[in-house]
Amino acid sequence: MGYSIVPLERLTEQLERLPGIGRKSAARLAFHLLYMPEKDAKTFMEALTDARDKIHECPVCCNLTDSATCPLCGDSRRDRTTVCVVEDPRDVLAVERTGEYNGLYHVLHGTISPMDGRGPDQLRVKELLRRLEDETVQEVIMAQNPTVEGDYTALYLSRLLKPLNIKVTRLAYGIPVGGDLEYADEITLSRSLEGRNEL
Amino acid sequence: MGYSIVPLERLTEQLERLPGIGRKSAARLAFHLLYMPEKDAKTFMEALTDARDKIHECPVCCNLTDSATCPLCGDSRRDRTTVCVVEDPRDVLAVERTGEYNGLYHVLHGTISPMDGRGPDQLRVKELLRRLEDETVQEVIMAQNPTVEGDYTALYLSRLLKPLNIKVTRLAYGIPVGGDLEYADEITLSRSLEGRNEL
Repeated sequence: MGYSIVPLERLTEQLERLPGIGRKSAARLAFHLLYMPEKDAKTFMEALTDARDKIHECPVCCNLTDSATCPLCGDSRRDRTTVCVVEDPRDVLAVERTGEYNGLYHVLHGTISPMDGRGPDQLRVKELLRRLEDETVQEVIMAQNPTVEGDYTALYLSRLLKPLNIKVTRLAYGIPVGGDLEYADEITLSRSLEGRNEL
Repeated sequence: MGYSIVPLERLTEQLERLPGIGRKSAARLAFHLLYMPEKDAKTFMEALTDARDKIHECPVCCNLTDSATCPLCGDSRRDRTTVCVVEDPRDVLAVERTGEYNGLYHVLHGTISPMDGRGPDQLRVKELLRRLEDETVQEVIMAQNPTVEGDYTALYLSRLLKPLNIKVTRLAYGIPVGGDLEYADEITLSRSLEGRNEL
C-alpha cells in the first residue's frame, strides 16, 4: 500500500534516532508532538534551542554550564585542593547527589578508546594539566566508570599526574550497597576483593 | 546541594512530559539533544516544525494529510461505497497495513466520553453525516477500539446512521490469531462467543 504522511514520517524517523526510542515509541511521540497545543510546542522548541544556545563548557572544569564559569568552580566554599575527574557532566550530577563530596570536578567528555579512535587529545586532558600547574590541587580522584576504557583512562592519567607530585586516587568499585554476594558477577567481586579495607 | 544547569533542567522537564518518557530517559535524551551536531539538530527541529505546519485534516475524511485532500480520498481506485470509521489517524495506518480494505475512512479524532467531557460535538460526527448525504456510501464499518468509550461511540453512531438506510457494521472482536483460549481474558472470550460465525 505504501500510504504515509511524509512530514509525519520524517518526524518519526528523527525521533527514532534518539537513544532508547524504537519505531513504535517514535510514532507515538510524533503524534503527541503533532497534536500538542501551539503554546506547549513553542515552549518545547524554546527549551531545546535555549539549551543548545546557552550551555557551553566551563573554562575551568569543562563541565556544562550556562554561566561564565560553572557554579561549582565559582563556589568559594568548595575545597580547591581536590579535583574529581569524571567522564561526563552526568557523573558530576551523580557525585553531587551523594552530598559527600566538597571538592571540584574536571569533566573529560569521554574516555580514551583506541578502538573508537579516541585518544587523550579528544578529551579535556590539556585543560586538566593546566589546572594543576599552580599547585593548589593536592589530590585528584579518578571517578571513571569501571569499564575497560574507564580503567585505561584512569591509569593513563595517573601515570601523567604522578610525576607532578599529586596524590592520585580511584573510586572504590565493589558490591553495591544492598547487593548480594551470591548474585554479584565475578568481575565486581574480584574488584571488591582487590579493594578490601582493613577493619 | 541543589546544583543544576537551568536550561538543561528545563529541556529535561519538557521531555519528561512526553508520553512514555520518565525522568531518567528525559535526562538521557536532553544530553543527547545537547551534544547533537548542529546539522542534525537543525534537521530535527525542521522535521518538527514542518510536521506541525504542513499537516492538517483532510476536508473529506478528517484524516491527517499534508496535501489538499488525503491520498486515500483522492485515490480513484478505492471503493467509495464503504467508509471505515476510526478513532485516530494511527488506526487508519493499522487498517491499511492489513492490505485487506479498499474503501474510504473517516477519522473521528477521539471517542465520546462523558467522563472526560467529550461529547459528539468534539468529534468529527457532523463531517461524517455530511459525507453520507449524497447516498454513495452503502456501508459504514465501525472500527473503534473495544473499550467502553469505543463501544459507546459505535453504538451512538449506529443509531444515528440507521435511519439513513445505511448498513452499519462493527469490527469483530475476539481471540487474537495465535492467541490461546486458556489465556484469553473473560471479556475478550465473551466478545468472541457473542460474535461467533456459522461454519
